[in-house]
Amino acid sequence: MSSHNHNTMMISVIGGSSPTQEAVHRAEEVGRELARRGVTVVCGGLEGVMAAVCRGANEEGWATVGILPGDDPSVANPWVDYPVCTGMGYARSAIVAKSGRAVIAIDGAYGTLSEIGHALSDGVPVIGLGTWGLSRNGSADTAIVQAATAVEAVDKAMEAAKARKLGESAS
Amino acid sequence: MSSHNHNTMMISVIGGSSPTQEAVHRAEEVGRELARRGVTVVCGGLEGVMAAVCRGANEEGWATVGILPGDDPSVANPWVDYPVCTGMGYARSAIVAKSGRAVIAIDGAYGTLSEIGHALSDGVPVIGLGTWGLSRNGSADTAIVQAATAVEAVDKAMEAAKARKLGESAS
Amino acid sequence: MSSHNHNTMMISVIGGSSPTQEAVHRAEEVGRELARRGVTVVCGGLEGVMAAVCRGANEEGWATVGILPGDDPSVANPWVDYPVCTGMGYARSAIVAKSGRAVIAIDGAYGTLSEIGHALSDGVPVIGLGTWGLSRNGSADTAIVQAATAVEAVDKAMEAAKARKLGESAS
Amino acid sequence: MSSHNHNTMMISVIGGSSPTQEAVHRAEEVGRELARRGVTVVCGGLEGVMAAVCRGANEEGWATVGILPGDDPSVANPWVDYPVCTGMGYARSAIVAKSGRAVIAIDGAYGTLSEIGHALSDGVPVIGLGTWGLSRNGSADTAIVQAATAVEAVDKAMEAAKARKLGESAS
Repeated sequence: MSSHNHNTMMISVIGGSSPTQEAVHRAEEVGRELARRGVTVVCGGLEGVMAAVCRGANEEGWATVGILPGDDPSVANPWVDYPVCTGMGYARSAIVAKSGRAVIAIDGAYGTLSEIGHALSDGVPVIGLGTWGLSRNGSADTAIVQAATAVEAVDKAMEAAKARKLGESAS
Repeated sequence: MSSHNHNTMMISVIGGSSPTQEAVHRAEEVGRELARRGVTVVCGGLEGVMAAVCRGANEEGWATVGILPGDDPSVANPWVDYPVCTGMGYARSAIVAKSGRAVIAIDGAYGTLSEIGHALSDGVPVIGLGTWGLSRNGSADTAIVQAATAVEAVDKAMEAAKARKLGESAS
Repeated sequence: MSSHNHNTMMISVIGGSSPTQEAVHRAEEVGRELARRGVTVVCGGLEGVMAAVCRGANEEGWATVGILPGDDPSVANPWVDYPVCTGMGYARSAIVAKSGRAVIAIDGAYGTLSEIGHALSDGVPVIGLGTWGLSRNGSADTAIVQAATAVEAVDKAMEAAKARKLGESAS
Repeated sequence: MSSHNHNTMMISVIGGSSPTQEAVHRAEEVGRELARRGVTVVCGGLEGVMAAVCRGANEEGWATVGILPGDDPSVANPWVDYPVCTGMGYARSAIVAKSGRAVIAIDGAYGTLSEIGHALSDGVPVIGLGTWGLSRNGSADTAIVQAATAVEAVDKAMEAAKARKLGESAS
């Protein structure tokens, strides 16, 4: 059985398909924590961090959206409830980034880096949990808000998402 | 409250933002009928046929996915539960087409035509309900399976989606 | 040797990869005719109509742009001068349609139909040469301007492209 | 007058729309240097680094390809010869990255970062000239090959592009 849920707040969780064990645990906890707060996870729909965050959300009874690279919904990890088929490969990362009111980046390889770039280009706040660090022509760039724990990452993502919403209402 | 729903069968419903009154009624009925069968509607997320089919699905307590043209989830019609922001404008029609196991086209303008083209290119079955008809260099093309009522359209879409799934399992 | 050519007028030529012999001849002639008028062909970059129109343009010494489905420029037909790799598969049809000031559709299958839909959605004029015909809920739709010969198709495409440009300057 | 140039080697040059004066000079020099070697510049088609690299290439008589965010070719900088309209906004960065056999990143903001991420995801070599530096969970990531001058950047990009081509031929 499913019940609907008008225009839920969504937060993107990004990260690679070959994470460390620590990153898997963090991603599951981020998924559980977002679900407890009534936030829907949107992610790239495949393995690793993407599977772990969906599994966490499902454990708390909440639905997940997976933005897939190809045309076949059956490649989604088993905890994706709503698989979206883009046929765009890695270029789907722009859609994952845009669909969240904030992004939590956990671990991750170059695909995650492109999602971080898209999010920051589009003004989507990015919270980092053991992920990429950036410098720009030699100076540190602090656009990624670093968090030390899953709960802190979710707290900061919710805060940034709400601040963004207020900013939009005011404009 | 939301409960999740592992990798639900999704069917795309496409059609324009300025439908006839008859098309609106048909789209609502298609939405209700799909929901009764446990199928999730995926659509372009905006007005007209897209809003009507989502409203119908929600009336029967079922969730909907809206694939939006821009970056702002708040432009989705009020019956979209999971808004996906593509930032791709009309080019999102390829994603709407691919994300359904079958497509039901109701009424519709040129955007709907491009979705029909994408679906047929990708091997996604298309059921038509008062929509485009095609001829190819003067001869009728029958790739769009025509239906006369909402229930017939849903029956044919379900049948085509299941046949497609069987074909994939066999290969 | 190459010389450049500031922001050339481009016209999209669309059509399938398995054309009739007549369509191949027409596509070559369209390519030659566009080149003679200093217009650059943009197309999907692969075989059939796409290869024929590029070959025609090259015969008259003019460059061509191919918008490819994947990541590998070497799959372009041998008459593509500037291969663009989209990684988007059929969804690239929206880019082919948008990149022309007008579209000439020759023969073609469902991919061509999706390009016609995208072009008409975006307000890009479409000239048809033995291609799809459309009806909408039973009534003929005349948005595709039909032409009987390659020269007539190019004449009509140039005229429509210039009218569009004037319309934009006026607004 | 234009002459064509079968399937030219293309190199992507990426960088932001508000570069430092030094970055503008470097981008122009990169454009001239690529043109002298018969390589076509592909870029995002707008201002700043994108305009400077196109201007440099044109000074040496060579054509350029601009992958634009929207639908209007007239927004391209005046040194773009072949404007491609994507209608995809920032998501076009995946196309810019894929269309080069190597990428040279000069200066740049978050859009450039997403292009770097896409290039590295897709196995496209990235040469940096006063651009982003990366660390991954606290350790430096050396995937961006740093160069100190425009000529060194072009040398390294050509070398990486040729090595990539050889690798593909061998497989």
